Amino acid sequence: GLAETTNCVRKISKKLGQARIQNVVKTVMIVTKPGDARLITLTRELALYLISTPRFGKEHGVTVYVDKNLKDSKRFDFPGMLKSTPLVKDYLKFWTEELCSERTEIFNFVITLGGDGTVLYTSWLFQQVVPPVLPFHLGSLGFLTNFDFKDYQAHLTNVMEKGIRVNLRMRFTCTVYRQVHNHGKAMRCGETGEIMIQNPKDGECEDSEHKCDQDKDLPCVITKPGESFEVLNDLVVDRGSGPYMSLLELFGDDQHLTTVQADGLVISTPTGSTAYSVSAGGSLVHPEIPALLITPICPHTLSFRPMLLPDSMELRICVPYNSRSTAWASFDGRNRVELKQGDHIKVTPSKYPFPTVCMETQSIDWFNSISRCLRWNERERQKSFV
Amino acid sequence: GLAETTNCVRKISKKLGQARIQNVVKTVMIVTKPGDARLITLTRELALYLISTPRFGKEHGVTVYVDKNLKDSKRFDFPGMLKSTPLVKDYLKFWTEELCSERTEIFNFVITLGGDGTVLYTSWLFQQVVPPVLPFHLGSLGFLTNFDFKDYQAHLTNVMEKGIRVNLRMRFTCTVYRQVHNHGKAMRCGETGEIMIQNPKDGECEDSEHKCDQDKDLPCVITKPGESFEVLNDLVVDRGSGPYMSLLELFGDDQHLTTVQADGLVISTPTGSTAYSVSAGGSLVHPEIPALLITPICPHTLSFRPMLLPDSMELRICVPYNSRSTAWASFDGRNRVELKQGDHIKVTPSKYPFPTVCMETQSIDWFNSISRCLRWNERERQKSFV
Amino acid sequence: GLAETTNCVRKISKKLGQARIQNVVKTVMIVTKPGDARLITLTRELALYLISTPRFGKEHGVTVYVDKNLKDSKRFDFPGMLKSTPLVKDYLKFWTEELCSERTEIFNFVITLGGDGTVLYTSWLFQQVVPPVLPFHLGSLGFLTNFDFKDYQAHLTNVMEKGIRVNLRMRFTCTVYRQVHNHGKAMRCGETGEIMIQNPKDGECEDSEHKCDQDKDLPCVITKPGESFEVLNDLVVDRGSGPYMSLLELFGDDQHLTTVQADGLVISTPTGSTAYSVSAGGSLVHPEIPALLITPICPHTLSFRPMLLPDSMELRICVPYNSRSTAWASFDGRNRVELKQGDHIKVTPSKYPFPTVCMETQSIDWFNSISRCLRWNERERQKSFV
Amino acid sequence: GLAETTNCVRKISKKLGQARIQNVVKTVMIVTKPGDARLITLTRELALYLISTPRFGKEHGVTVYVDKNLKDSKRFDFPGMLKSTPLVKDYLKFWTEELCSERTEIFNFVITLGGDGTVLYTSWLFQQVVPPVLPFHLGSLGFLTNFDFKDYQAHLTNVMEKGIRVNLRMRFTCTVYRQVHNHGKAMRCGETGEIMIQNPKDGECEDSEHKCDQDKDLPCVITKPGESFEVLNDLVVDRGSGPYMSLLELFGDDQHLTTVQADGLVISTPTGSTAYSVSAGGSLVHPEIPALLITPICPHTLSFRPMLLPDSMELRICVPYNSRSTAWASFDGRNRVELKQGDHIKVTPSKYPFPTVCMETQSIDWFNSISRCLRWNERERQKSFV
Repeated sequence: GLAETTNCVRKISKKLGQARIQNVVKTVMIVTKPGDARLITLTRELALYLISTPRFGKEHGVTVYVDKNLKDSKRFDFPGMLKSTPLVKDYLKFWTEELCSERTEIFNFVITLGGDGTVLYTSWLFQQVVPPVLPFHLGSLGFLTNFDFKDYQAHLTNVMEKGIRVNLRMRFTCTVYRQVHNHGKAMRCGETGEIMIQNPKDGECEDSEHKCDQDKDLPCVITKPGESFEVLNDLVVDRGSGPYMSLLELFGDDQHLTTVQADGLVISTPTGSTAYSVSAGGSLVHPEIPALLITPICPHTLSFRPMLLPDSMELRICVPYNSRSTAWASFDGRNRVELKQGDHIKVTPSKYPFPTVCMETQSIDWFNSISRCLRWNERERQKSFV
Repeated sequence: GLAETTNCVRKISKKLGQARIQNVVKTVMIVTKPGDARLITLTRELALYLISTPRFGKEHGVTVYVDKNLKDSKRFDFPGMLKSTPLVKDYLKFWTEELCSERTEIFNFVITLGGDGTVLYTSWLFQQVVPPVLPFHLGSLGFLTNFDFKDYQAHLTNVMEKGIRVNLRMRFTCTVYRQVHNHGKAMRCGETGEIMIQNPKDGECEDSEHKCDQDKDLPCVITKPGESFEVLNDLVVDRGSGPYMSLLELFGDDQHLTTVQADGLVISTPTGSTAYSVSAGGSLVHPEIPALLITPICPHTLSFRPMLLPDSMELRICVPYNSRSTAWASFDGRNRVELKQGDHIKVTPSKYPFPTVCMETQSIDWFNSISRCLRWNERERQKSFV
Repeated sequence: GLAETTNCVRKISKKLGQARIQNVVKTVMIVTKPGDARLITLTRELALYLISTPRFGKEHGVTVYVDKNLKDSKRFDFPGMLKSTPLVKDYLKFWTEELCSERTEIFNFVITLGGDGTVLYTSWLFQQVVPPVLPFHLGSLGFLTNFDFKDYQAHLTNVMEKGIRVNLRMRFTCTVYRQVHNHGKAMRCGETGEIMIQNPKDGECEDSEHKCDQDKDLPCVITKPGESFEVLNDLVVDRGSGPYMSLLELFGDDQHLTTVQADGLVISTPTGSTAYSVSAGGSLVHPEIPALLITPICPHTLSFRPMLLPDSMELRICVPYNSRSTAWASFDGRNRVELKQGDHIKVTPSKYPFPTVCMETQSIDWFNSISRCLRWNERERQKSFV
Repeated sequence: GLAETTNCVRKISKKLGQARIQNVVKTVMIVTKPGDARLITLTRELALYLISTPRFGKEHGVTVYVDKNLKDSKRFDFPGMLKSTPLVKDYLKFWTEELCSERTEIFNFVITLGGDGTVLYTSWLFQQVVPPVLPFHLGSLGFLTNFDFKDYQAHLTNVMEKGIRVNLRMRFTCTVYRQVHNHGKAMRCGETGEIMIQNPKDGECEDSEHKCDQDKDLPCVITKPGESFEVLNDLVVDRGSGPYMSLLELFGDDQHLTTVQADGLVISTPTGSTAYSVSAGGSLVHPEIPALLITPICPHTLSFRPMLLPDSMELRICVPYNSRSTAWASFDGRNRVELKQGDHIKVTPSKYPFPTVCMETQSIDWFNSISRCLRWNERERQKSFV
């Protein structure tokens, strides 16, 4: 019956988080924050190490892709590398944003060097399938960067020889829908009393968040899908620098959930539960849980407690016509866009999760990160008096 | 690959919450709070209605089971029912706690009359498979009681003729492990510095929460499993009426997660997220999400934010030897037991979810309940001045 | 001894909140949001009523000052008023911002018409002594607007004949200090490790937030006082629309209190405790308590609990040199200014409180406002089943 | 006018917290937790030091009072002290609880040895005037114990020679009122719909929390004052070990403030804001602020935000007749009493503050204690990578 299927689904979920993957790694991509002198030096060192260290029974190492912008960097010194290490000629290549989006399959593996921001940048580079990511920090553990770069040789040997255990981090897809101005009008919904966006009349956009059946006599507004982003941490909709609180309408699976009167709203993945969401008062959510967090920023009501919804629920965050001001959206802290009255963002489950390499297990890594980065439930140890 | 399996699991989960079940209902059990005069009268009315109203092409209605305690109730007046309605002789029967636990299969359907407490009592009656439950309230909507009894005839006709959509609510199993005194000793764990319970040496208890390998030289404490409860809302471990804060050690999948210095700890299902957990500061969690909520009660540290863990994780809540006081546990507000130093409770996923009938859909029902019962994000509507 | 003096101070404080004032009111100022058609009509009606209704044994009413901007308003129709009501010639006058700041003494009494924003605007108009303010709302009770305009005649007769009880609401003074660029340098404080602003070398600014004695060898930065504002609700320092969290250093009476890593910081009066501060998680504070609330907006640490400090403490909110971004400050939601690295705001007790007329008593008014506006601790009343 | 008086009151308040007191100290009382072997040894050492070290131009030290229970303690070894140090005969005396309450004036100064609990015990010993208290900790700084015992000689020499700066900590008086059963009846209040306690008819109890005028026809319940306690930290009213939430009615200056449906309620001083109140979600309140904190424990409503009221407000916490269960009260964690339906506790300002010796200043001491004991706003320092 139903109950057994549920139990089965639970077991599959648990196993998914524990699988160990072993592949022959042929090409490694290195991502780092461009413009940081120290990081350029480390990227150079890492690339040379990867290329020169014999792997998989060959006399050479793996092919390495570094940022195209490094090609002409004095500090990176590509000509010098060619001279000192002949293997560089064949095994050092350069990636561009286009290559990442168009030929994803050529990268077997990604190494990031830096903080959580560099990992988020990697997520942004790969809007579809993402290769496994090994995130190194440079002394300060981050939520996403759990490997210490000072031990990079040991870590990389481990990865190459023993395979990896990945944490398949959920992402969600955000699509911005903008009102098409010349066709439609707003309508007032009888049930909630709010003015809402109507579904389209013609075939070109397939999008609806309210049944037109009962409101037939009203003309409809058309919205057209615009930009789309894969989000690893969070979508933040806020009032920008405007003086007024945002007014937002939140829908889930075409049902009106609530009216948000607040400085803003954070929609986050479990991975993002330790980022902006926790600052706004959200709970900490284990990355294996298939849920979205809805956390208001400085809500106007005392009773707007944070909420978790299933990741399969389709959300819409709408700026209604009766909002005094527009709103601003950002996606993992990037690509800030303005949402005018009538615009909305649709949040749907992504088909493309973000695989990061586990240090120990997904759970142990996660508990380590919240202890060290957030000092979660840390207390003053009693000192004894001698 | 992994990612596709994940997507598939997500879709199955979503569908599970939307299935409509249609069965021929032959026997209905009515559960209500015994001792409430008003409820006895309503139970009588409901039983007579169910027995007398022809269903499924027969000239009579369904078989009804009521609480054995009503058999001799003056107000229920079983002799009077027999006289006035001859069908009662064949179709009115009486249930006992034993019947519920031993012959679960004879009940096709359960109707509860009262508040959330009555639904929790039903969960307690059925420690294994639970028949679908239709929960009626008597004027005040509860989190679990979303059907208004004043429309019971329409609701029941609907159920019998059109079938039902159920909300398969997750439960978890709590097992109390008690220290066996004469065998073992405590040990101090090097990593955390806490004194912990050891796993057994002999075969009779299969339970371990710490690897003995690295601590071989230490004698071990034996714990034995005792009572076990299926929990629909929450397990609450608190300090009872003692003056000292509880000290609890929390383990997940045999890993030490944190030391809890607080008035207590709530472990709740998503269903229970609107009960004690929300009072203690927990988030609201949609009942479809497969997670456990860990919410501290009045924690000693400022940074003990509530947490969600996968429902597949095996938890242990231990009272360590260095705790100044014992702790008390209750299961859905019932069966209060004392936990001495060395005892613990193991929380594991239950194979037996609790199916409740949906009013509209699981999501709509849930949003209605948090709006009405918790006034979630309700605000003062602006009145306009005439 | 000390203890008795303390008791005495407590009693004086209590009495201050209960005094009833009765004065002959000769001139009344009406403040309203300019540009709202409906409010212009009501202002006209109110002015005519005040001028025409005989008071204090005279045949005419009081002198009324309305906003100079209304003089040429068609809807206000000053020429029409002159024609229909001869008293208007002598008793209707017009106020300007200059008149408010330079000749405060000519206003015996202020009536506001609108929401809390109009009362805050009145506070802004009177940067020194403020006449008693009677705040009317137009249907929706606000935190500051507790009188319903539909009963204005009864309320005003009461005020004129029986006198008033005022709520002396505390304000604080904010002074913006800006770094003078060509003189100084930053310094690193040994104790906290933060880079801080230094006190001046020459006589022109008297301002210091760190003892130079122990750091003599370092050159000093000079800051000069700039704009100054009397604040009734709150000072909000935030990151504006910048992508990075603000870094702020908070000092109290020249002592470093804490480093703020957050979206911003709210410094509020008890009056302002029901405004932005409560959205950011602050407690509700009775307006009689002489305290400042320090409430972080989305803090980076889990342990940044809101704090209350004595209103006699001199605070400084500094943007340190190591902040990645500038900050923005607003004063009761107005006069938004940018704070560059090296700038700071000094908060000092104001000599000029803001007197509002009580409806019943200060306490009863306050509890009414938090019940109605915030629904503080409101719960679903149990409905009984008939 | 009013405003100037307010300014004056503020300045006096500020000065009160900064006065330095210098007295000739003749007798010192030592308070410690009886039964702790280590503390007995330290008390002995301290007493000998105080008696033997010449002070104020005399050849001997001060008179020391220790706990009467130590007189026969083997470890304290009074006979041995008499033998080894002849001054002990004249200068070592013993205190009892009776002596503290009846002859308070003989103690010039109190030294506590231990944790915050020992300081609270001292507060309990002195229900009226309290001598200045110097609180030593034994290695772990507490909120109230800011002096490290390992430097006791330096600290005491400082105190004796340079005088002290005290922190006059506010206390409040709690009086338990119990219903007298044979006289009265409950009444239902028209305004709030709650059943309340009535004021007395005869002269023997002077207590009222509701105007009888408008409800004359109802018979009245009589309550009689019982136990009374001076509270330094907090009054906690909770449900004890009962299964049901407490129902409490809260009144302030005879006005009904709110109905509390929660696990309990904490009424605390600013000193107590770092104790139970902060665990229940209260703000941190500087000890100089004349306010009471009202913090609910696990409230049933989402909107029950903590609140601060003036310390001059007279509070009553009543257990109404419609409460399903009784409640329990404790005073600084002591003297637990049961409150039956009809009973209440009255909270009034105390005339007897609790003076503790400042380490630096009241503010600096307080900020140190919240940083160290609560880790308030502590964050992970970024480590740099070499």
